[in-house]
Amino acid sequence: MKAVQVLAYHQDMELRDVDEPVISGPLDVIVRVGAAGVCRTDLHILEGQWTEKSGVVLPYTIGHENAGWVHAVGDAVTNVAVGDKVIVHPLMTCGLCRACRLGDDVHCENNQFPGINTDGGYAEYLRTSARSCVKLDDSLEPADVAALADAGLTAQHACAKAARVLRPGEFCVIIGAGGLGHIGIQCMKAMSSATLVVVDRNPEALALAREVGADHTVVADGSHVDAVRTLTGGRGAAAVLDFVGEGGATADGVAMLRNAGTFYVIGYGENIDIPTIDVISTEINVVGNLVGSYTDLQDLMALAAQGKVTLHTVQYKLADFQQALDDLGAGKIRGRAILVP
Amino acid sequence: MKAVQVLAYHQDMELRDVDEPVISGPLDVIVRVGAAGVCRTDLHILEGQWTEKSGVVLPYTIGHENAGWVHAVGDAVTNVAVGDKVIVHPLMTCGLCRACRLGDDVHCENNQFPGINTDGGYAEYLRTSARSCVKLDDSLEPADVAALADAGLTAQHACAKAARVLRPGEFCVIIGAGGLGHIGIQCMKAMSSATLVVVDRNPEALALAREVGADHTVVADGSHVDAVRTLTGGRGAAAVLDFVGEGGATADGVAMLRNAGTFYVIGYGENIDIPTIDVISTEINVVGNLVGSYTDLQDLMALAAQGKVTLHTVQYKLADFQQALDDLGAGKIRGRAILVP
Amino acid sequence: MKAVQVLAYHQDMELRDVDEPVISGPLDVIVRVGAAGVCRTDLHILEGQWTEKSGVVLPYTIGHENAGWVHAVGDAVTNVAVGDKVIVHPLMTCGLCRACRLGDDVHCENNQFPGINTDGGYAEYLRTSARSCVKLDDSLEPADVAALADAGLTAQHACAKAARVLRPGEFCVIIGAGGLGHIGIQCMKAMSSATLVVVDRNPEALALAREVGADHTVVADGSHVDAVRTLTGGRGAAAVLDFVGEGGATADGVAMLRNAGTFYVIGYGENIDIPTIDVISTEINVVGNLVGSYTDLQDLMALAAQGKVTLHTVQYKLADFQQALDDLGAGKIRGRAILVP
Amino acid sequence: MKAVQVLAYHQDMELRDVDEPVISGPLDVIVRVGAAGVCRTDLHILEGQWTEKSGVVLPYTIGHENAGWVHAVGDAVTNVAVGDKVIVHPLMTCGLCRACRLGDDVHCENNQFPGINTDGGYAEYLRTSARSCVKLDDSLEPADVAALADAGLTAQHACAKAARVLRPGEFCVIIGAGGLGHIGIQCMKAMSSATLVVVDRNPEALALAREVGADHTVVADGSHVDAVRTLTGGRGAAAVLDFVGEGGATADGVAMLRNAGTFYVIGYGENIDIPTIDVISTEINVVGNLVGSYTDLQDLMALAAQGKVTLHTVQYKLADFQQALDDLGAGKIRGRAILVP
Repeated sequence: MKAVQVLAYHQDMELRDVDEPVISGPLDVIVRVGAAGVCRTDLHILEGQWTEKSGVVLPYTIGHENAGWVHAVGDAVTNVAVGDKVIVHPLMTCGLCRACRLGDDVHCENNQFPGINTDGGYAEYLRTSARSCVKLDDSLEPADVAALADAGLTAQHACAKAARVLRPGEFCVIIGAGGLGHIGIQCMKAMSSATLVVVDRNPEALALAREVGADHTVVADGSHVDAVRTLTGGRGAAAVLDFVGEGGATADGVAMLRNAGTFYVIGYGENIDIPTIDVISTEINVVGNLVGSYTDLQDLMALAAQGKVTLHTVQYKLADFQQALDDLGAGKIRGRAILVP
Repeated sequence: MKAVQVLAYHQDMELRDVDEPVISGPLDVIVRVGAAGVCRTDLHILEGQWTEKSGVVLPYTIGHENAGWVHAVGDAVTNVAVGDKVIVHPLMTCGLCRACRLGDDVHCENNQFPGINTDGGYAEYLRTSARSCVKLDDSLEPADVAALADAGLTAQHACAKAARVLRPGEFCVIIGAGGLGHIGIQCMKAMSSATLVVVDRNPEALALAREVGADHTVVADGSHVDAVRTLTGGRGAAAVLDFVGEGGATADGVAMLRNAGTFYVIGYGENIDIPTIDVISTEINVVGNLVGSYTDLQDLMALAAQGKVTLHTVQYKLADFQQALDDLGAGKIRGRAILVP
Repeated sequence: MKAVQVLAYHQDMELRDVDEPVISGPLDVIVRVGAAGVCRTDLHILEGQWTEKSGVVLPYTIGHENAGWVHAVGDAVTNVAVGDKVIVHPLMTCGLCRACRLGDDVHCENNQFPGINTDGGYAEYLRTSARSCVKLDDSLEPADVAALADAGLTAQHACAKAARVLRPGEFCVIIGAGGLGHIGIQCMKAMSSATLVVVDRNPEALALAREVGADHTVVADGSHVDAVRTLTGGRGAAAVLDFVGEGGATADGVAMLRNAGTFYVIGYGENIDIPTIDVISTEINVVGNLVGSYTDLQDLMALAAQGKVTLHTVQYKLADFQQALDDLGAGKIRGRAILVP
Repeated sequence: MKAVQVLAYHQDMELRDVDEPVISGPLDVIVRVGAAGVCRTDLHILEGQWTEKSGVVLPYTIGHENAGWVHAVGDAVTNVAVGDKVIVHPLMTCGLCRACRLGDDVHCENNQFPGINTDGGYAEYLRTSARSCVKLDDSLEPADVAALADAGLTAQHACAKAARVLRPGEFCVIIGAGGLGHIGIQCMKAMSSATLVVVDRNPEALALAREVGADHTVVADGSHVDAVRTLTGGRGAAAVLDFVGEGGATADGVAMLRNAGTFYVIGYGENIDIPTIDVISTEINVVGNLVGSYTDLQDLMALAAQGKVTLHTVQYKLADFQQALDDLGAGKIRGRAILVP
C-alpha cells in the first residue's frame, strides 16, 4: 500500500510502497483510512523534537488523527465489525492496568501511540486496537471527524472537567481561539451554561469565536486581564481554560481567576510559576489536561453527531501530503487539513 | 394595602384591606410585589389540604411565587438595597443550622414558607428575608420570572442533579411535558448534551416539547415503555425525570431505566414500589427532589437572563384573582397565570 | 481433576473426575484453586432458583468465591504471571463495552459468572480471565480472602459509595450484623469517620459488631426505629445501609433517614414501597448495590492487607463439601465456610 | 477586662485593662475565653508582616484561635445559648454573599478576622458572630481544642479534600510532620485508608508521626524523592500534602506525584514553578488550601470528640503571654502553647 514515511529527520517525508498491516493479536483491528488529520506535531516530528521521547525506529509512517472503515479484526474483537465506520483513539491501551480498569485509559502503563512511536495513518491502512475504535453515527463521515481524534479530544476532555463544576452564569475564560480553542468553545457551550469569555490576540479569531458561542470576547492587547476582571464584576472567573500556554498566557490566566477558581492547562510552553502564598490565600487550583479517554472520544462523537461540534477542514489527496504540510507550516490552513487516501 | 386572604377553607378568598408588613427583624426585607404566580397549590390550600401540615392561622394572605422591588430593608441587610428588582425564594431560612451552613438551605430546620404558613404575595407588599432575595438581571422583569420561584425552581434543582452526571448523548427521559416538565426540558437542554426523550399523553404538549428542545417525543399510549427501550437500543435511559408521579408514571419510569440508571422523583401522588431484588440486580437509584436552594434560584435566574428558560404567562390584575383561580381550575391557562398588583 | 458438580436440581451434588480447564482465549487464566467460599447462593442453586436466570447447562461445577495461584495464562495476559497469588473477581467481563470502558465493569454487557452460568471453583482448577485476577499482597493467603470475593465485595462496594459522602460524626446505620454486615462495619470504619449505629435482632451479633467498630448498637425489637431517631437527636441518619432487605427492614430503614439522607439497598427480598410525597418532602435517595467492580476488589484487598477487614473462616476439604453445605444450611457456621482442595 | 494588646510594631505587647466587648449586632456573640492558641502568626504580627494586609488600627487585641463559653448573645442568635461550650471559627462571615450561600464561607466577600484585623482572644472576653460558634461535645473542653481553631482547621480542610478521592491503599505523602502535619496525619488516618508516607527532616518528628498513624516515614535527607518513588513501586503517590512550602518542598512534592496525582499546597513560602509541558504530560493537579469552612470545623470537632485528633498543649496564664511567645520563638514548645485567662 501507499504510506507517507519519515526516512530521516530534517528531510522531507516520502510516499512509499510498504506492506499492508496485518492482524497479529486478538484485539487488533485494521482500519482502511478514510482521513488523517495533518497536525503541527507532524512538523515537529520531522524536526526531530520527538526522537528521544518516542524512541521510534525509522523509517515509519506518521499520522495520529485517523478515521475510516474497519477492514479486518482479530479473534477477540466484539465491539466493531468489518465495514463499520470508526474514529480511532490516538492511543492503543492494554485494558489490564489499574488506570485502564478505572476508565482512565489515557494513563495506561503499557500504551502505544501510532503515528508517534509506531506506524500511523498517513497511509491506506492502519493497524490499531479494538480498544481504540469508536463507531461513528450514521450522520458522520471519517473525513468530518478525523481531525478531532487528538487535538479536539484534548479540548473536549478539559472542557468536560470544567463543565462538571461550572454552574449557569459563572464565568469561564477561554484563552486562545485557534484550532483547539475553537473546539473548546463549542464543547463548553454544549455541556454548560457558563458565561464564556474568549481572549485572543487576533480579532478575526474572536469574530469566529462569537459565531460558535462566545458570550464576550476580549482582545489580548495588554489590558485583557483588567478587561476580564471588569467583565466579572471585579471577582474574576470561576474557570480559565488556557489553550495557549506561552507568551505570558499562564500568568495572565491565573490573574483572571476568582477566589477558589480553577486554571486548566491545555496549551504548553512556558512554566506555571505562582507564589504558594497566592495559591493558598486565593485557594485556587491548577489542573493539567492530557488527551481524553476512550469514553471522552465517544462523548465528543456524540456532540459531533448532534451538530454541536463542527470543524472546518481542507482536503488533500494522500499523494499531496507535502503540500498540506507546507500549507500548514505557512499558516495557510483555515481550520484543519486532512489527507484522504 | 390590598391583599387576597383565606378567611375560611372551602370558601372563596377575598380581597381585603390589611396593614402593610413592616420590618421587624434585622434581615427582614419588604418587597413591593411585581407579580405573584397562581399555582395549583393555591387551589389545594382552599380545599384544606395544607391545613394540618402548615398549621397556619386564618385569615392569612396566600401566594408563594413572588417577585418585585425591594421597598424596605432591616439593619443587617447587605445583599439587596431599596429599589432592587428581586425574585423571592419561597422559603425564609435561618442561616445558622447545619443544612443552611452547607448551602442546602432547603432543609433549614427553622424555615418559614410565606403563602403557606405565613402571609404571602397575593398582595401589594410582602415581608421576606434578605436570605430569600435574588437580584434580577437588568434584562428580566418581575412579571417574567415570578412563576419560576417555586415550580420552576423545583424543575431546575432536579435537572441540575441529573445534568451533573449525564454525559453527551446519554439518554434522559422526561415524563410529563406540562408546566414543570416544560421548564425541565429547557433546563436540561441548557445544562447538558444528553439526548432528551419526552413522554406525555398529550400530543400538543409533545409538539411544544419539541419546540423547546426535546430530541425525541413519545406518546404515553400504553406502549411508551417499549418505545423508550427501543429508542435507547434496548438498554434503557441513564436518567428518567418524572414530573407526573401518578397514574403509573412511577413504575413506567423505573422500567425505562438502563442498568445503573437513576429515577428522579419530582411529581408525586402514587407510591414508588419496586422489588429490592430488581433495585440491586440493575443497581438503579431513586432520587427525591424538593424545591431548589437559594443558589439554585440564582442559577435559574442566570438561565432566564441568558434566554434559555422562558415561560408563557397570562396576566391578571390582583383584583381579578378569582378569575385567575377559576381559569386555572378549568384548565384554561396556557403556561402560568400571574397576578399583578 | 476433582470437581463438585450439580448433576440435577433438588439432588445432592457430587465430587467427580472432570477434565482440567485449558486456555482457549488470549486473556484466559487458569487458577489452581486455593480456597472457594461456600455461599448461601450455592444452596439456592441446588433448589433450582437460578435455573432460569442463569440458563446453565448441567452438569456443571459451582463455586463463585475463589482465590488461588495462577497456573497458566493466555497469550495476551500481562497483569499476572504463573505462580502469582490471586483472588478472582466473580465476573468475567469483556473490557470493550461502554460500562467496561468507564470502569463500571459490573454492568458489562457480555459478562459470564463462573459458578453460576459456567464452571466455578469447587474444583482443583478454575478457568477465569486476566480481567478477573487481582494479585494478593504477600501478607495474604487465598484461604484468608476467598470468601470476600463476592459477598464481601458487595459490602465494600456499597460502603465505598456511602463513605464518599459521609462526613465525620454523621450517623450511618447498618441494618444486619451477619456475614455481610460484619464486613460492612469494618469497611465503613476503615473508610470514614461516620458514627456507626448497628441494628440487629441478635444480641450476639451486636456484641461482635461492637468488637469490629460499631459506635452504638440497637436491638431490633420493634422499638429500634425510635431508638435510632433518639440516638440521632431526632433528625435521623445521613445513611442507612440495609444488609437484610426483608422482614420490614426496608421500611424501618427508610424511617430512620434524616432529610436528604440515603438508603442503600444491599440485602433483598421484600419490596421498597414509599409514597412519592414522602420521597420528595424529605428529599431522600435510594441507592441499589450490586457486587463491586474490579477496582473495588483491589481496594478491598488493600483493606485486607492493612488488617482492617478480616473474616472468620471454617475450613473443609473439597471432598467434605456436603458437610460444609449441611453446616451452612443448619446455621452452624460462624463466619464463612471455605473449601480447600 | 484584661487583654493582651499590640501597642506598636517591633515592641512587646502589653496586658492592659480594656472595656469588655458588648453585643452590638443581632448575630453577635460574646465568648468568655477558655483558651487562646499561641500561633507563629502572632509573632509575625508584631514584626509588622500583617500591617498592610490587615489594615488594623493599633492598639488592638491579638489571638485568632479561641474557645470558651458563650457569655451573651444578640437578638437573632438561635444556634448557641449562654453557657454553651464553643470553639470559635477564625472568620466572621456575612452569610449573604454567594460564597456563604454555597457553604464556602471561607471566601465570604465581607469577612472579618478577629485577632488579625479586629480584636481577638488574648483576653477575658471576645466578640464574635453566631455564625462562628461551633458547640463542643460534652467530652471536650475549650483548652483541649482552642489551638485547632485555625491551624488544625487548615489541615483538616486539605485532608478532607484528599480523603474524598483517595481509595484504600493508594499512596498519600505528607511533607512536614510538625504542628500542622501532625494534625494532618491524624485527619487522613481518620477519614481514609490511604497508605500514609510522612517525610520530614527531623527523625523525632517522624517517630511521632509513626505513633499517630504514618504507615511509612522517610527522612528528608536529599534522597527522599527517590525513596518515595521506590516505596510507591516507581509510580509516585496519588496525593502529596505539603505542609512546608519552602526549602524545595514544593518541587520535591511535585516530583513525588504519580500520573494524574494531586499536590495540595498548605505550607507556603516559595513559588510553585513547573513547566506546563510536565503539567499536561503527567496530567497533575495543584490544589490550594485556605482555612476550613464552618462545617469543616464541625467535622474537626467530631474527630476530636471521637478521640481521633488530639493535640499536645502547654498551658500558660494569660498574664504569662510573653513567656509563651518567647518559648514559641525559641522553639521550646512541643505541640501547641495556649493562654488560659
